Amino acid sequence: MIMYDDALQKVLKNTDVLEAEEKPLLECTGHVSAEDVHADICLPQSDISGPDGYAVRSADIKGADRLNPVTLKIIETVRAGCLSRKKVIPGTAARIMTGSVIPEGADCVVRFEDTDEPGDKNGPNTMNPKEVKIYVAQPAGANIRGAGSNVQAGFPVLPGGTLIGPTQISALASIGRGTVKVIRRPVIAVIATGDELVSVGKPLSPGKSYNSNTAAIASLVAHYGGIPKILGIARDRESSLLKKIREGAKIADAIITSGGVSKGDYDLVRLVMGKIGEVVFSRIKMGPGAAVAFGMISGSSTGRHTSMPVFGLAGPPPGCLVNFETLVRPFLLKMRGVAALNHPVIEAVATDSVPGKMPMAFVRFTYLRKREGEYYVTLNGAEKIGALTSMAAANSLTIVPERSAIKAGDRIPVLPLDWSMGQI
Amino acid sequence: MIMYDDALQKVLKNTDVLEAEEKPLLECTGHVSAEDVHADICLPQSDISGPDGYAVRSADIKGADRLNPVTLKIIETVRAGCLSRKKVIPGTAARIMTGSVIPEGADCVVRFEDTDEPGDKNGPNTMNPKEVKIYVAQPAGANIRGAGSNVQAGFPVLPGGTLIGPTQISALASIGRGTVKVIRRPVIAVIATGDELVSVGKPLSPGKSYNSNTAAIASLVAHYGGIPKILGIARDRESSLLKKIREGAKIADAIITSGGVSKGDYDLVRLVMGKIGEVVFSRIKMGPGAAVAFGMISGSSTGRHTSMPVFGLAGPPPGCLVNFETLVRPFLLKMRGVAALNHPVIEAVATDSVPGKMPMAFVRFTYLRKREGEYYVTLNGAEKIGALTSMAAANSLTIVPERSAIKAGDRIPVLPLDWSMGQI
Repeated sequence: MIMYDDALQKVLKNTDVLEAEEKPLLECTGHVSAEDVHADICLPQSDISGPDGYAVRSADIKGADRLNPVTLKIIETVRAGCLSRKKVIPGTAARIMTGSVIPEGADCVVRFEDTDEPGDKNGPNTMNPKEVKIYVAQPAGANIRGAGSNVQAGFPVLPGGTLIGPTQISALASIGRGTVKVIRRPVIAVIATGDELVSVGKPLSPGKSYNSNTAAIASLVAHYGGIPKILGIARDRESSLLKKIREGAKIADAIITSGGVSKGDYDLVRLVMGKIGEVVFSRIKMGPGAAVAFGMISGSSTGRHTSMPVFGLAGPPPGCLVNFETLVRPFLLKMRGVAALNHPVIEAVATDSVPGKMPMAFVRFTYLRKREGEYYVTLNGAEKIGALTSMAAANSLTIVPERSAIKAGDRIPVLPLDWSMGQI
Repeated sequence: MIMYDDALQKVLKNTDVLEAEEKPLLECTGHVSAEDVHADICLPQSDISGPDGYAVRSADIKGADRLNPVTLKIIETVRAGCLSRKKVIPGTAARIMTGSVIPEGADCVVRFEDTDEPGDKNGPNTMNPKEVKIYVAQPAGANIRGAGSNVQAGFPVLPGGTLIGPTQISALASIGRGTVKVIRRPVIAVIATGDELVSVGKPLSPGKSYNSNTAAIASLVAHYGGIPKILGIARDRESSLLKKIREGAKIADAIITSGGVSKGDYDLVRLVMGKIGEVVFSRIKMGPGAAVAFGMISGSSTGRHTSMPVFGLAGPPPGCLVNFETLVRPFLLKMRGVAALNHPVIEAVATDSVPGKMPMAFVRFTYLRKREGEYYVTLNGAEKIGALTSMAAANSLTIVPERSAIKAGDRIPVLPLDWSMGQI
């Protein structure tokens, strides 16, 4: 039996960041970049107009105000995407639309609102004006967005190792990147074990249980950025489990089993793991799910891996889910190239007490709420509404340390479950 | 020009929660439940054994300890999923595996560790023992998990309106639910506008810009649980924009355009919106992206909607993304049936200052870090590395209120961007 921290270190020592692949930009959300992306252009490429207005020479409009407007001759209208064909010479102005390139000769832009052109019209100005009255004086550079003010050529827009979200997608698309090298997603084989298991949707005879861990593990794998491959239920014979594990080793980067890791006659996961590889640990000093195994087995037939990690998670759902959150989550994140492996932590005030000083750390499914800027956590739910019902109502995990009690009012660290984080 | 809060109220007033659909359990992650799911069975169905051990009569082992063990005759081995065929009578015990139904006559379970059977073996006990020595006395009920201790029949395992994550999937599978009624995901048509736009991957001539908003909006829609349908670029003619909007109205629940909402000759979004429906608002008192329009147009040909929301987001990427986070995000969440529409907020210490007292609230892309339990936010990035590069490096938004300044050291509210929340 080893401490949880040691167990996690052993898992991460056996975890490699996966290789990179070139992916279309639209599929890169949620991936970690595997290259430094530099801009090879400036954005904007040239000086452009901020507002819709008139590109003018600042020297021409010195001293202009509402009472003493300066009248300029309109030489053309410049629209975004089209270059101006004319030069703004003294006494002239070019009508210019947002984002359009500043014509030669002009050094500032006056907004429609500061001219005699109405600024609140919808769509084209049908008046086709020949002259404009300018109502303000402005310095050179006013209302111009300089070349490179959004992105400077040569600058790293996205360093390797960045988790790509919508803002990164926006920046990458802006510099014209259609594909990016990213760390690929891990493929995880999911195997349930046990003669007592019945697939969801089938009738349940006495003594049997529904296979709930497969659905929960597949959901967790997908949530943390992996691709689950469901291999069904291995029955309580060595040959059945071995066959499923060999199947998983051919198609996956890692295998997750649930059940069959206790001390019973039909708990075959450690036995099989040991026969085709090495059991790294098989029991941790933290519950629920203290009987959790981790091993490395000989690699897949594709030759991509020389050895493959296998997690043997606990069978009872609370233990299985706690094993996943505490051991498999950081494993998946590391494989994906994510830098922050620790669970987010929030400090909360306990609203009730946990008296039991357990001989090992114990993880509870808890209920977190924010009220007037302060977080509060309710620790006891399972006793009232049942362990699984309470788990389904939880939005956080709270670790009660070994031989410790928690009193109502204590400030304690709580781990919000990612998928409910925006709901707290 | 209306205040942001008013604009959001107007959007939400025009937003309906979408209808429910029955979905396979494995596809329900991230959906909101549209029914109260009650358990129609108890879990476990019967009293079962917690550990691997021996099911005995507590009366038989009174006073037992290491020096005075009680020897019992083994009548059978009970495994999970199989019901026991024999009765435990005085002087006998049944070997029993974790999760197996307690045989008739027995009222407690003694763990292998408290008997003469080795508790650390891997797999079956090949000794096939006929008798067992019990080393402990135990009360009735010890090591038994009672029927209904996980879930009580009739109890609501999942109330309607719950955001379904892995723990909820686990509980639903445990009671055998293969499908669940959930609110369906919104389908969102994404349209870019502007003659200056070039598709990502094509060469960029002077004066043109890459269409980055489509990729960013599609990524945001998917991130917030919608299904983006990319309809390409509408050119700066009424007919082109109208065609794309009509196309979107046929296939989507809402339409998002970007660009073309300013005051220029070719800013046609409001114009077209007004011609085929009603412009609800067209300018808000918050930047960037103050020129943002929202309207309701006549419904789709499928008859599913009587009217359809259209967002006209700003063209420059920072404005477009801020518009999405502040106006479209709550809209999508409400459509999906999510209860918490507000952005998560964290209080952070400003590491630098924003002197400008702007005439309207202004949203900055900012950089949040946690150090020793305290959050710190850096407000100025764009000035040094360019607006887009700074946006791609940001993990949060900070709203500088109207006519306000922020000084280094101030404690201010910061909105972490969801996709980077675990990375801070």
